[in-house]
Amino acid sequence: MDRNPLTVVGSVALDSVQTQHGKIERAIGGSAVFFAAASCHLSPVSTIGIVGEDYPMEKLEGLRERGADLTQIEKAKGKSFFWSGEYSENFNSRDTLITELGVFEHFNPSIPSYLANSRCLFLGNIHPAVQTNVLEQMEGPEVVVCDTMNYWIDQNKDELLELLGKVDILMINDSEARELTGESNLLNASRIIQGFGPDSVVIKKGEHGALFFGLEWSFAVPGLLLEKIVDPTGAGDSFAGGFMGYLSTQKVFTPDSYRMAMVYGTVMGSFAVESFSIDRLEVINEEEILERVSELRELTSFEMSARESL
Amino acid sequence: MDRNPLTVVGSVALDSVQTQHGKIERAIGGSAVFFAAASCHLSPVSTIGIVGEDYPMEKLEGLRERGADLTQIEKAKGKSFFWSGEYSENFNSRDTLITELGVFEHFNPSIPSYLANSRCLFLGNIHPAVQTNVLEQMEGPEVVVCDTMNYWIDQNKDELLELLGKVDILMINDSEARELTGESNLLNASRIIQGFGPDSVVIKKGEHGALFFGLEWSFAVPGLLLEKIVDPTGAGDSFAGGFMGYLSTQKVFTPDSYRMAMVYGTVMGSFAVESFSIDRLEVINEEEILERVSELRELTSFEMSARESL
Repeated sequence: MDRNPLTVVGSVALDSVQTQHGKIERAIGGSAVFFAAASCHLSPVSTIGIVGEDYPMEKLEGLRERGADLTQIEKAKGKSFFWSGEYSENFNSRDTLITELGVFEHFNPSIPSYLANSRCLFLGNIHPAVQTNVLEQMEGPEVVVCDTMNYWIDQNKDELLELLGKVDILMINDSEARELTGESNLLNASRIIQGFGPDSVVIKKGEHGALFFGLEWSFAVPGLLLEKIVDPTGAGDSFAGGFMGYLSTQKVFTPDSYRMAMVYGTVMGSFAVESFSIDRLEVINEEEILERVSELRELTSFEMSARESL
Repeated sequence: MDRNPLTVVGSVALDSVQTQHGKIERAIGGSAVFFAAASCHLSPVSTIGIVGEDYPMEKLEGLRERGADLTQIEKAKGKSFFWSGEYSENFNSRDTLITELGVFEHFNPSIPSYLANSRCLFLGNIHPAVQTNVLEQMEGPEVVVCDTMNYWIDQNKDELLELLGKVDILMINDSEARELTGESNLLNASRIIQGFGPDSVVIKKGEHGALFFGLEWSFAVPGLLLEKIVDPTGAGDSFAGGFMGYLSTQKVFTPDSYRMAMVYGTVMGSFAVESFSIDRLEVINEEEILERVSELRELTSFEMSARESL
């Protein structure tokens, strides 16, 4: 039987966000939603999450039409995870105004057997004990990537370290990598993280792009140059979705496939920030995606002469 | 007659610097010194500057041996430019403790005729009126690059804008680009700067690398991944030295030559930060330089499959 290519576990939320370009109220969001909205352009993806009775499931219809399996989003009694935040001008910082966990507080999913055999698993940013519990239900995934955040690093470091002993790749942002390791140099921070377990570390740096630290090799990709950033919410999860959506189409995971996964992650992150919610990710097509891949190639490639190639 | 390839005008200073890795007292520094220390590995370079009677010219002997022309460093009555600063742990910020301009306060050089015909000119970070005065003495330079800093943006903006109408490339760091334009998005900031005059803009982002904005094309290069950063002082000038040292070896200035110039700039900046003063730049050889060029290529290259190359 063919294995399921890609599964994500994460939050399915409602977001109210204000940026210099406007605001949205209770729009669809959450790590699993952004991840699915990005990855579904590249691969079938199954989403495991939980919502309350108030969730506008019809707004996920576009995702379903593009091949995302949403059947494992449980509907529970209570309210959906709600997050509200406001970005400073220039997006240098953001204030969280409200976080209401709602039904997400007791989220601890059972993985159905057709997903337990997924080749690729993304553990979105949720409690590390829940991430571990999900991972333990899997049957030999080929690559497991997990995200986390400063809150879990502060509050649940032991459980996070236990999880890290079991995953292949930790994908976090630069400030989280520094907080987790106490090391400001990102090369050295990644080596410390590799000591915790993961073979590889992806460090996301927002507009400055992202770094991949493998065993004995590294890859750096800059951010695409965008005229207008509307809302950075979900950029990291969209990056993860592009990264794993690409990866899950690959038969084997080589350094070359990780490099291209970083490229697709960057491209999907770039679309995500050009609108509120998943609006832009909903309407892009394959041609636009491939155009940005080419753009990133143009942005970064240089030809060495005979002198440098010696 | 062959034209002189490359001339730099800038400060020749004494620096006292403290970082988490130690301190130096009155070591050689200044924009023209870092620039020459980097560029002399790639091209002959002539340095125009001024020092006081206290300057340890013998410490520049290594530069001279590697082909830097130091005959246009004027020795004047008085004290040399002295700068003292201290970096925070992690190099996130630095405090200037002392700035004594000394003889540099009245620096307004006359350019000798054998340098007035230089193909490439770098106007280091000095008063924009002095930069303009130097530029006006040149005879048809093929490419003029200038640096500046927040102080001149604040205090002498009109003179800076006058200068920008006459140069080919402005090379500044990201915070300066934002301050100069009032625009936080670096793509849009670079377009505003191009409106001031320069065809191209180089924006340096420290550990995050650098961006080149040309007419209708851009290039991004990440920083090399370094295990140990000892002192960031002079990184930007060393970047400029690598950039222009490479450029001055090129017969014509094409996008490809600017891309490689960015690569050499990044490589030279990476050496500069691995020691105090120009210590590391003094001892590197061609092989080490080419190794880092290759390393940067490895760090950034990715192969598109047939699908992406369509």
